[in-house]
Amino acid sequence: MKIGIFGTGMVGQAIGSKLVSLGHSVKMGSRQAGNEKAVAWVQQAGAGASEGSFAEAAAFGEMLFHCGLGHAALDILHAAGADNLKGKILVDITNPLDFSKGMPPTLFVSGDDSLGERIQAAFPQTKVVKSLNTISNPVMIDPARLGADHDVFVSGNDADAKAQVTALLKNGFGWKSVIDLGDITTARGTESYLLLWIRLWGCLGSADFNIKIVKPS
Amino acid sequence: MKIGIFGTGMVGQAIGSKLVSLGHSVKMGSRQAGNEKAVAWVQQAGAGASEGSFAEAAAFGEMLFHCGLGHAALDILHAAGADNLKGKILVDITNPLDFSKGMPPTLFVSGDDSLGERIQAAFPQTKVVKSLNTISNPVMIDPARLGADHDVFVSGNDADAKAQVTALLKNGFGWKSVIDLGDITTARGTESYLLLWIRLWGCLGSADFNIKIVKPS
Repeated sequence: MKIGIFGTGMVGQAIGSKLVSLGHSVKMGSRQAGNEKAVAWVQQAGAGASEGSFAEAAAFGEMLFHCGLGHAALDILHAAGADNLKGKILVDITNPLDFSKGMPPTLFVSGDDSLGERIQAAFPQTKVVKSLNTISNPVMIDPARLGADHDVFVSGNDADAKAQVTALLKNGFGWKSVIDLGDITTARGTESYLLLWIRLWGCLGSADFNIKIVKPS
Repeated sequence: MKIGIFGTGMVGQAIGSKLVSLGHSVKMGSRQAGNEKAVAWVQQAGAGASEGSFAEAAAFGEMLFHCGLGHAALDILHAAGADNLKGKILVDITNPLDFSKGMPPTLFVSGDDSLGERIQAAFPQTKVVKSLNTISNPVMIDPARLGADHDVFVSGNDADAKAQVTALLKNGFGWKSVIDLGDITTARGTESYLLLWIRLWGCLGSADFNIKIVKPS
């Protein structure tokens, strides 16, 4: 499949390299084609990897992954262009982290809003699926690294889009459990959880963890 | 030990009955002594159980459990009286849920604040330990009901107070894992997690669950 990625950071590189290793063609988008980090990633990721502008990555991809920073998430999508996003699945990994008040970050959304919903509202013809935003990038693409089973979530309004993302997470990334939380408003749950994730990161001294939902068998 | 409880709802009754069954003397506090639910609880909980006003419960307890509703949490403590709370451990189980906009609830604190911090700031001579607010009351007092291991958290500024609460949770309530997240500002993490908990409750169809932190062994 042709996949477009927005963002050249650690998340974008990890997701991009994993998708290339699975045989997909991946175009990494950034503000301007020729971005230094994107070019270096293409050289390292090998055949199947390419780079370009946000709009070029969006036009290229049949499925899209948003791996940008939260505060730039909507700007990036406007640069990508609504026409290039139209009708496509957008896996939204962004988190609404606000670093403006120092560390640890807070959120720039409140409990009756989420970045996932803002993105869906701004691009109503795109099928937004919030996922993978509750874990660090090594865990996203290699869940088995933690040993025991654990859970990742999907939130979105389009059942078929969630099913396609779930299939990729399971068959491609190796996730054994993908929990469908419901419509895109459930992104409030996973985005707010980040505030606990950050504190767990602090007290565990590592981002190499995730949560498992435990219920009576 | 003598323990005071604020709140006559399901959480207060569950915690109170568990503490009585462990041999503690428990006074359930409510707005006015003689509260119908508190009187019924005393009859059912048996020897060691008593009831009274918030102030009477606070004066009675060597350790205190706040099992009230979030929006009333500070009012309840003001009614209990700062002098009666002074120097004591207050286990704060309240959550800042805001039902004023309908279901599902949002939070009346933002990511740079928490109800735990507000309580600690209002009663600086009380040792506030936020805990047990991430699970439903049957799980609080009987973690083994879920089968596999899972985690509960403590947040607070006083290390000795957290150690005493942790000992009660482990030796009394049967918790195997109690994670110390850090100072009372880490209550932001567990209170914000409630927004994910609520969505999990919706999609699992039951409140009988909890999370386990999974990390490489």
